[in-house]
Amino acid sequence: MTTQDGIALSELAKLVDGTLGGAQATIRQVSSLDKATGDCISFYADRRYRADLSNTKAGGVILTAEHVDDCPVPTIVVKDPYYAYAKIADHLHPRQWAEPGIHPTAVVSDQAQLGRDVRIGAHAVIEAGARIGDGSEIGAGSFIGAGARIGPQSWFANGVTVERECIVGARAVFHPGVVIGADGFGFAPGAEGWRKVPQLGRVRIGDDVEVGANTTIDRGTQGDTVIDQGVKLDNLVHIGHNARIGAGTIIAGCTVVAGSTNIGKNCTIGGAAVIAGHIDIADNTTLMGMSAVTGTIREAGVYSSPIPVQPVQQWRRNAARFSKLDEMYKRMRTLEREIQELKSAGQNSAMPNPNTQAEDRAAAARSTGGASS
Amino acid sequence: MTTQDGIALSELAKLVDGTLGGAQATIRQVSSLDKATGDCISFYADRRYRADLSNTKAGGVILTAEHVDDCPVPTIVVKDPYYAYAKIADHLHPRQWAEPGIHPTAVVSDQAQLGRDVRIGAHAVIEAGARIGDGSEIGAGSFIGAGARIGPQSWFANGVTVERECIVGARAVFHPGVVIGADGFGFAPGAEGWRKVPQLGRVRIGDDVEVGANTTIDRGTQGDTVIDQGVKLDNLVHIGHNARIGAGTIIAGCTVVAGSTNIGKNCTIGGAAVIAGHIDIADNTTLMGMSAVTGTIREAGVYSSPIPVQPVQQWRRNAARFSKLDEMYKRMRTLEREIQELKSAGQNSAMPNPNTQAEDRAAAARSTGGASS
Amino acid sequence: MTTQDGIALSELAKLVDGTLGGAQATIRQVSSLDKATGDCISFYADRRYRADLSNTKAGGVILTAEHVDDCPVPTIVVKDPYYAYAKIADHLHPRQWAEPGIHPTAVVSDQAQLGRDVRIGAHAVIEAGARIGDGSEIGAGSFIGAGARIGPQSWFANGVTVERECIVGARAVFHPGVVIGADGFGFAPGAEGWRKVPQLGRVRIGDDVEVGANTTIDRGTQGDTVIDQGVKLDNLVHIGHNARIGAGTIIAGCTVVAGSTNIGKNCTIGGAAVIAGHIDIADNTTLMGMSAVTGTIREAGVYSSPIPVQPVQQWRRNAARFSKLDEMYKRMRTLEREIQELKSAGQNSAMPNPNTQAEDRAAAARSTGGASS
Repeated sequence: MTTQDGIALSELAKLVDGTLGGAQATIRQVSSLDKATGDCISFYADRRYRADLSNTKAGGVILTAEHVDDCPVPTIVVKDPYYAYAKIADHLHPRQWAEPGIHPTAVVSDQAQLGRDVRIGAHAVIEAGARIGDGSEIGAGSFIGAGARIGPQSWFANGVTVERECIVGARAVFHPGVVIGADGFGFAPGAEGWRKVPQLGRVRIGDDVEVGANTTIDRGTQGDTVIDQGVKLDNLVHIGHNARIGAGTIIAGCTVVAGSTNIGKNCTIGGAAVIAGHIDIADNTTLMGMSAVTGTIREAGVYSSPIPVQPVQQWRRNAARFSKLDEMYKRMRTLEREIQELKSAGQNSAMPNPNTQAEDRAAAARSTGGASS
Repeated sequence: MTTQDGIALSELAKLVDGTLGGAQATIRQVSSLDKATGDCISFYADRRYRADLSNTKAGGVILTAEHVDDCPVPTIVVKDPYYAYAKIADHLHPRQWAEPGIHPTAVVSDQAQLGRDVRIGAHAVIEAGARIGDGSEIGAGSFIGAGARIGPQSWFANGVTVERECIVGARAVFHPGVVIGADGFGFAPGAEGWRKVPQLGRVRIGDDVEVGANTTIDRGTQGDTVIDQGVKLDNLVHIGHNARIGAGTIIAGCTVVAGSTNIGKNCTIGGAAVIAGHIDIADNTTLMGMSAVTGTIREAGVYSSPIPVQPVQQWRRNAARFSKLDEMYKRMRTLEREIQELKSAGQNSAMPNPNTQAEDRAAAARSTGGASS
Repeated sequence: MTTQDGIALSELAKLVDGTLGGAQATIRQVSSLDKATGDCISFYADRRYRADLSNTKAGGVILTAEHVDDCPVPTIVVKDPYYAYAKIADHLHPRQWAEPGIHPTAVVSDQAQLGRDVRIGAHAVIEAGARIGDGSEIGAGSFIGAGARIGPQSWFANGVTVERECIVGARAVFHPGVVIGADGFGFAPGAEGWRKVPQLGRVRIGDDVEVGANTTIDRGTQGDTVIDQGVKLDNLVHIGHNARIGAGTIIAGCTVVAGSTNIGKNCTIGGAAVIAGHIDIADNTTLMGMSAVTGTIREAGVYSSPIPVQPVQQWRRNAARFSKLDEMYKRMRTLEREIQELKSAGQNSAMPNPNTQAEDRAAAARSTGGASS
């Protein structure tokens, strides 16, 4: 049964091991709760859309058992509606692959090795020694450098670059403008200016990795930059040379990972985070968007750092105060001492505050080290 | 009269409904006040260039009435010199369009629809079902996906991508490396790792939109990502899936708008701002550069947030204090109580400070919610 | 002697004016200390790798005299090991250039001027009036606009854009996705919305400049955007129109330099820094990563600004306090006055604190100006 003919809601329930509730329906597409019509399937997983659920006209809704009674139309009950939705949406709307074959305008080296059923788009360039796995698609104008290897069933949009010798696993999804394996940023200062340090490593990317549009992952200086299995990177992310991103870690748009940093497994990193070089981030760490990470994070947890916007006059005053925050702290400490003395004077007793003294020593130690300590 | 022959200053004054003051001149080009020669026209709209005005050798200067006496050369008096300058500069130096026609190396599907007088550059790819409006130019190596629609009189530089089914209005200006309609960043967590959520929506872009180099706008998950009429986006901006940018809003370089966020009309957003997902920004809001927006902004106004740089030793001490700012606040509050008690003791009366108590409750409420509350 | 045959360690020592210590070895490649085998040369310049030095199996290690005794294998002693390493690595692993010639799929205007021994990759486009210097390589799919000039011995990866009339010096290294000379971001507000201000300047780039993947440098509005000799830019950097970057300045990934800003010579700018428009940065300034620069920096020094991440609950409380930091300051000042009064009461004397009064005036002045003052 094709999508055009529609699929029975009961079939979709089976696909996700869900329980069908209510009448049968024929489903042709997915939709949001508020825009769905009778041939659409929707999902409910976020309380913000509670009103949309009550008013939906979908042919079926994927949800958890506790919300069945709130839904006016047939349901598929599962434990994880969003995951089940992803599976069903994929089934109803599979990615469109090009027809197998090599476009006549593509430039493919006769020393490249192409697997079975590959698709090579118009104006793509595949250099000598490159290998493209079975069933993979290399989009129009993409560039696969000499000796690079792309695993099977990978899908590259137009305008993707994988530089020489880099390795990409199976089922990769790379969006337009992705650049894998440009030189890392390494220069040695000398009397005549900066001297380029040759970037001799590669980028090695595991299976099931997705990389967003215009994201760049630099090749290593000596060893490799490594993106482990199942990593998902959003658009305009920058991964510096010799960084390593652990399996299952997900990184939202415009995040910067500087060189030689080691991010653990299954981390969740929000957009526009900035992670300094030569540090470690523990497995399972969550960084909220706009996090500034200046030092190693040893313990998994949820971390954050931005100063949220304020009306500009208020911001000006607060930012000006921030620039003297340490001084302000010291004045406060002076007050604490003075009050202590006043109270003591009242009690005929003037003991120094031991907590305050310990803090003095700690602050002195901190001011010679990093702010992240 | 061509630009090479020059245009009378009086003609330019007419073009912008301005008043000519001083002698006639023949103008061939625009220039800044300090570098202008007798065949140049300049404008004055910023006090920082006051000295340049006094010393200019331009053939004419566009300015407001109040500055006529400060100008040693002929003038065109208007209400808005910068706007008038833009119009005159456009007249003297119109954008160079390619000759109409399809470059022989372009790959254009015979199922694509091309309007009259279109220009298709070398190695461009136009897929089946795509439509290009009358007079539009698609630069070298650009990619227009299946079913995408580009309005008339649009100008795309080389290396622009518009993915399948996306819609772009009239008079668009897209710079190199722009990626419209790559998949949004949506993954559902499951036992076997992240599962891709198909991104089934489009990007819909209104008329008169300009998009800067290497900027990315992702397609929607179900519904569309929408960029309304007259929006201007600078380079390396990222717009997440299902975001909406209201008409006339202008966004400077490297700003990040996360998914499902709704930015109002006529907003002015500085560079490197970061706007969280699933929030609203009111019409006419101004965000200064580097603003971190973590929650909805309901009232138009001018907002800001960065901590400006300080000498590094000072920054270290202040940043260390920031990490204990709440504790510092609490110590200050203790001081307030103690002083109150000392004063009361002097007055034989010890009432608690009601303001301080109310703040305690407010702070407790805040610490369980978002920082943007 | 080719690299495949290997090079005597003594030869490499001569190349860098170093002193050989220990037995001779034949070197074929560079490697890190921990992974090196007997035909590898490594370097030691960072205490973090002290243990690797003691255990290395390299054929030779480049280091300073003071560490010779810590090294179990032959050594090359120099003053600057990293710089010497860069030179040796370059010698052992020189950049691979394409064979001279024009790929048959390239589109080269017959009005373009190509120097001797140029390499033009597949699908590259060279427009009329463009000039490519002797021995330069223009990678696959790159675009050189009308009238642009590229100096000799420059190396452009695939997918590089240099727009019309822009100028690039000798020995440039540009990585994939670089966009030089897209329009600057200039719009004049008017009754009918934003009107584009034509961007009529160029980008002028000196000799020995390297530009990272997907970095964008906009053309000037009237005058030029200028990148001086020896500047190194990492990936995803944005340089706005009419900015100037002084000779020898190095800028790490994802940094933003807004329009008309003038950065001095030999500055070191960390990743993800943001530098506002229309300001100056003194020669030899160092900006640490994530610096927010909102105003001119007149004195060279090391500057920084990020708030490092904290556990999210702590961050929420501190960020909430920050939004009232000025109020907190004022409450502290009130405390200072009150204590003064209490102490004075004890001493039968109540003089106001003159320091506190001066600060009041300074704060009032600041709140009407910029936060960077």
